[in-house]
Amino acid sequence: MEQYTPPITKLIEELARLPGIGRKSAQRLAFHILDMKGSDVTELAKAIVNAKKLTKCCKICGNYTESDTCNICGNVRRDHSIICVVEDVRDISAMERTKEYKGVYHVLHGTIAPLDGIGPDDINIKNLITRLNTDVSEVILATNPTIEGEATAVYISRLIKPIGIKTTRIAHGIPVGGDIEYADEVTLMRALEGRREM
Amino acid sequence: MEQYTPPITKLIEELARLPGIGRKSAQRLAFHILDMKGSDVTELAKAIVNAKKLTKCCKICGNYTESDTCNICGNVRRDHSIICVVEDVRDISAMERTKEYKGVYHVLHGTIAPLDGIGPDDINIKNLITRLNTDVSEVILATNPTIEGEATAVYISRLIKPIGIKTTRIAHGIPVGGDIEYADEVTLMRALEGRREM
Repeated sequence: MEQYTPPITKLIEELARLPGIGRKSAQRLAFHILDMKGSDVTELAKAIVNAKKLTKCCKICGNYTESDTCNICGNVRRDHSIICVVEDVRDISAMERTKEYKGVYHVLHGTIAPLDGIGPDDINIKNLITRLNTDVSEVILATNPTIEGEATAVYISRLIKPIGIKTTRIAHGIPVGGDIEYADEVTLMRALEGRREM
Repeated sequence: MEQYTPPITKLIEELARLPGIGRKSAQRLAFHILDMKGSDVTELAKAIVNAKKLTKCCKICGNYTESDTCNICGNVRRDHSIICVVEDVRDISAMERTKEYKGVYHVLHGTIAPLDGIGPDDINIKNLITRLNTDVSEVILATNPTIEGEATAVYISRLIKPIGIKTTRIAHGIPVGGDIEYADEVTLMRALEGRREM
């Protein structure tokens, strides 16, 4: 075992708990932090604490925000009649990068995953249903094309359909720039299923 | 640009400044931190601040320590007549893992790198020379086999030789488990130069 002093060992342990950071990376990061200026170290620690302390979930859609509602839900120029349901706050950024989508969002903060003991009540579904008033014309289900994401989309669509609101699922297929030769059979099957007339 | 709130943007920026962490990783880490329990986030921030605050350099060898001298310099069972000179505190851990070396260390905290404006006075060389009393029988130069590491080793050996203390350089060659076929020519040349009778 390496002969580090307790504060260094503790820091390495804490860093190694972060996703994608193994013991070696944690060591390199820890020593980099020790080499940093004291003021920069304080900045880093403060940024970590502040991000957690100052960020809460938008009470409408579940997006991260500093105030009660996020800047997308509070934006009157967005189309509040279309709600795009995503698994994660990061998916909002991905959608926003397309610069095409002008509706609003709903963040589930997870998917239904019975094997992990996560049921419909453990993710942000109930709030979605309460949002569905007469002003909402379409709900786009943009959960990931994984088993859990698909199951969650199916579950939600079954809840919404009786209300009489249009429910759509984003298309799956060959990614742009992708190669049919190397596409997996499920993706290719979905691409065929989703074919459109030219 | 992604629509994150300022505390999240700030955290991503701070994390992205760490070595080996790009913007994507910084985002993933930031969102992981937001998902962590509040107490765990505080722990992480405290570990960062404490490691920096509680760690200082051993006044003898430059190793990291919580007290004035490190636990290697303070260990009477180590052989204080042999000093192994390394570039970085992490190199001590690597040496210690061999479980073979029983001497003490001297950490340079860098190498002489004229192109980066780092001269002999900018690294921990002066303290090494002051340590060289009559009790010291050998100085092992274990700087990295890079241009800067080699130059630093040569520089230090020229300072020590007039004092009349044995100065050695660690061997370079084919790594154990390595393949001669894929060894670069410089390493192979060093391996030939360093050949020993069997």
